[in-house]
Amino acid sequence: MATTQGQVITCKAAVAWEPNKPLTIEDVQVAPPQAGEVRVKILYTALCHTDAYTWSGKDPEGLFPCILGHEAAGVVESVGEGVTEVQPGDHVIPCYQAECRECKFCKSGKTNLCGKVHSATGVGVMLEDRKSRFSINGKPIYHFMGTSTFSQYTVVHDVSVAKIDPKAPLEKVCLLGCGVPTGLGAVWNTAKVEPGSTVAIFGLGTVGLAVAEGAKTAGASRVIGVDIDSNKFQIAKDFGVTEFVNPKDHEKPIQQVIADLTDGGVDYSFECIGNVSVMRSALECTHKGWGTSVVVGVAASGQEISTRPFQLVTGRVWKGTAFGAFKSRSQVPWLVEKYLKKEIKVDEYITHNMTLEEINQAFDLMHEGKCLRVVLAMHG
Amino acid sequence: MATTQGQVITCKAAVAWEPNKPLTIEDVQVAPPQAGEVRVKILYTALCHTDAYTWSGKDPEGLFPCILGHEAAGVVESVGEGVTEVQPGDHVIPCYQAECRECKFCKSGKTNLCGKVHSATGVGVMLEDRKSRFSINGKPIYHFMGTSTFSQYTVVHDVSVAKIDPKAPLEKVCLLGCGVPTGLGAVWNTAKVEPGSTVAIFGLGTVGLAVAEGAKTAGASRVIGVDIDSNKFQIAKDFGVTEFVNPKDHEKPIQQVIADLTDGGVDYSFECIGNVSVMRSALECTHKGWGTSVVVGVAASGQEISTRPFQLVTGRVWKGTAFGAFKSRSQVPWLVEKYLKKEIKVDEYITHNMTLEEINQAFDLMHEGKCLRVVLAMHG
Ligand SMILES: NC(=O)c1ccc[n+]([C@@H]2O[C@H](COP(=O)([O-])OP(=O)(O)OC[C@H]3O[C@@H](n4cnc5c(N)ncnc54)[C@H](O)[C@@H]3O)[C@@H](O)[C@H]2O)c1
Ligand SMILES: NC(=O)c1ccc[n+]([C@@H]2O[C@H](COP(=O)([O-])OP(=O)(O)OC[C@H]3O[C@@H](n4cnc5c(N)ncnc54)[C@H](O)[C@@H]3O)[C@@H](O)[C@H]2O)c1
Ligand SMILES: [Zn+2]
Ligand SMILES: [Zn+2]
Repeated sequence: MATTQGQVITCKAAVAWEPNKPLTIEDVQVAPPQAGEVRVKILYTALCHTDAYTWSGKDPEGLFPCILGHEAAGVVESVGEGVTEVQPGDHVIPCYQAECRECKFCKSGKTNLCGKVHSATGVGVMLEDRKSRFSINGKPIYHFMGTSTFSQYTVVHDVSVAKIDPKAPLEKVCLLGCGVPTGLGAVWNTAKVEPGSTVAIFGLGTVGLAVAEGAKTAGASRVIGVDIDSNKFQIAKDFGVTEFVNPKDHEKPIQQVIADLTDGGVDYSFECIGNVSVMRSALECTHKGWGTSVVVGVAASGQEISTRPFQLVTGRVWKGTAFGAFKSRSQVPWLVEKYLKKEIKVDEYITHNMTLEEINQAFDLMHEGKCLRVVLAMHG
Repeated sequence: MATTQGQVITCKAAVAWEPNKPLTIEDVQVAPPQAGEVRVKILYTALCHTDAYTWSGKDPEGLFPCILGHEAAGVVESVGEGVTEVQPGDHVIPCYQAECRECKFCKSGKTNLCGKVHSATGVGVMLEDRKSRFSINGKPIYHFMGTSTFSQYTVVHDVSVAKIDPKAPLEKVCLLGCGVPTGLGAVWNTAKVEPGSTVAIFGLGTVGLAVAEGAKTAGASRVIGVDIDSNKFQIAKDFGVTEFVNPKDHEKPIQQVIADLTDGGVDYSFECIGNVSVMRSALECTHKGWGTSVVVGVAASGQEISTRPFQLVTGRVWKGTAFGAFKSRSQVPWLVEKYLKKEIKVDEYITHNMTLEEINQAFDLMHEGKCLRVVLAMHG
């Protein structure tokens, strides 16, 4: 490491030059970390829908050219001035949801959202000088979500990196950077599902399956999985889903189907697709008087959810979750421990292992709905 | 009382024959209470918006002819078979929100909504025989909300009547049948406002002012009142409102005005108007990460609320309340005690005292926005 510290590193990264054009593997220059920054050698990264969404050009805040990726694990290569909590050699998971422990949000005790670096990460730069650390022949390439893990080396803010147990296999725990904690936390932290509760999950991808696992460990009595792809039903059983409903098999609105199955509705529901009309169904399939519905899926920009206010006046609660309400730097290491103790699944979500060079094929698999998580080995 | 028990009573009532036609004072026959029923001599009734809404014909579930009214107090005249919790002479408040203590809802510990008599009260009849106890020359007149307090005598289900301290002045505590508990409970039970919180209240009628009082007693640090009628601001101070905003004085959307005033938004907001676009503003003026908005106002049938799901994903919670989540029979007597101990206001909401004969003028005052609560003396 002594050889690269303080130096620009040239490495491979998948660059999104324009919306919807295939990513290309480029030689990218990664500048050394400045004050409060950490340069991380990314070893493994998974793909998530938010990457695909921004890449598609539908995200009005998307900036190009950029380096996508936010669900990964690696090793600290070097740190900038004033960084005390991690040092070269530490195993880490980059966290798109920062945790500074000092801002109004972090100190509120009520949310995991952190306000410290948002003004920079939201526009693809670092806070210190509002510039990017990535460039190709001098031309800057934007950061993405403060993580940009589709690069062999990346630079993140020190508030955006969780130090984890070095015993954890990075090719697995990279998933603890986004989808799995989101689903588990939606149940444990946002909904706070109690033993004996009935649960409906809309969408049985990685996030929905993690919701199922969260519900099972929380002691839910019934976990109803809803998906338009019946192929998802077999695997979902292993994650705790006890009953399946395919909306295509029913004439009635899906909220009615679920209300009929559950004597008036479920106690908790989770939307894990990103479809605003399903978000409405998810709210309306919960029980009058106490039903709580959590929006987990991310809808396309500009889309709106709606319902009759009577749904709320008669006792239903509509919430949402970001990163499962987990405080990233504090709790990602705890999730890693839970994985090491075999208390939560991680390996089971990984359906494909590929390399950085195969990233476009990996996205094809995602778009075809043929995978849960694809993990890319970043160094061959 | 021995003279009327078991007999049909003929008395005065304000009858709504058709939508939007003036109510007429008629001689009505009130049948004796059947099993599980209580006949109540109504002494005082107030007017509320739900009465006006059904009367207007906009409520698709409204049935005519009917006897409206649901915010009242009186004395038990006689009881039907099997009624044990009240007896003739008891002072009572009719409760449109029943509490049977036996149904799935009552036993859930999670809601004040009760399922026992809803199937009957929702269609203007009594549960026992699915018929009305009101008639005029043999023609049945529908009940309303299980209360029908615009009659000198009414028949209610035993699960819909709260026995209160006979020391309480009925001409005041009749208000504890609807609007005041709704506002207080929205704060105490539904939002659970903590000391030091910031609060915004949209609409400063009786319900909004009760929210203000609830917020003040809960220790809120700032209570921002929002109303398009600046005349409401003076009196609102007495109820705990600390700052006023009239949306008409601003170019910016009201949610932006409030976010600017409060460094990002209030902790809690309450919509006390029944306007779906204000419901959206009320949600969006709460703080990212933890803001909670409670829908209290009742919108016209068919209207919908909407927002971007991002509002929820970034930590806002959307709820509603019915009767302030108070369990009616258990907690209305407790509210009466709080009033007697001068811990909550009631008298201050009463701006006009009139008689049953003047009921149409009383509704005119309401429609002109010139009153808080009008209380009608039912027996002269
Ligand atoms: N809130 C957060 O912090 C957060 C974090 C990560 C991911 N997400 C979001 O969660 C969502 C799910 O992510 P994922 O990786 O599990 O996605 P995925 O594509 O693997 O899974 C989605 C599932 O929904 C099913 N589906 C699609 N339309 C449906 C419909 N109309 N009815 C029923 N099922 C339907 C699909 O068949 C698929 O199985 C995405 O929107 C993603 O952006 C949110
Ligand atoms: N959820 C429940 O259990 C429950 C119980 C009782 C009443 N309510 C409802 O609560 C609502 C309020 O009742 P109330 O008796 O206080 O009514 P009210 O008419 O006395 O008060 C409404 C106030 O809102 C103001 N207003 C109207 N439009 C506005 C706007 N666009 N922006 C700001 N202010 C505006 C009016 O000037 C008025 O001061 C009604 O919809 C009523 O049906 C609900
Ligand atoms: Zn912070
Ligand atoms: Zn009940």
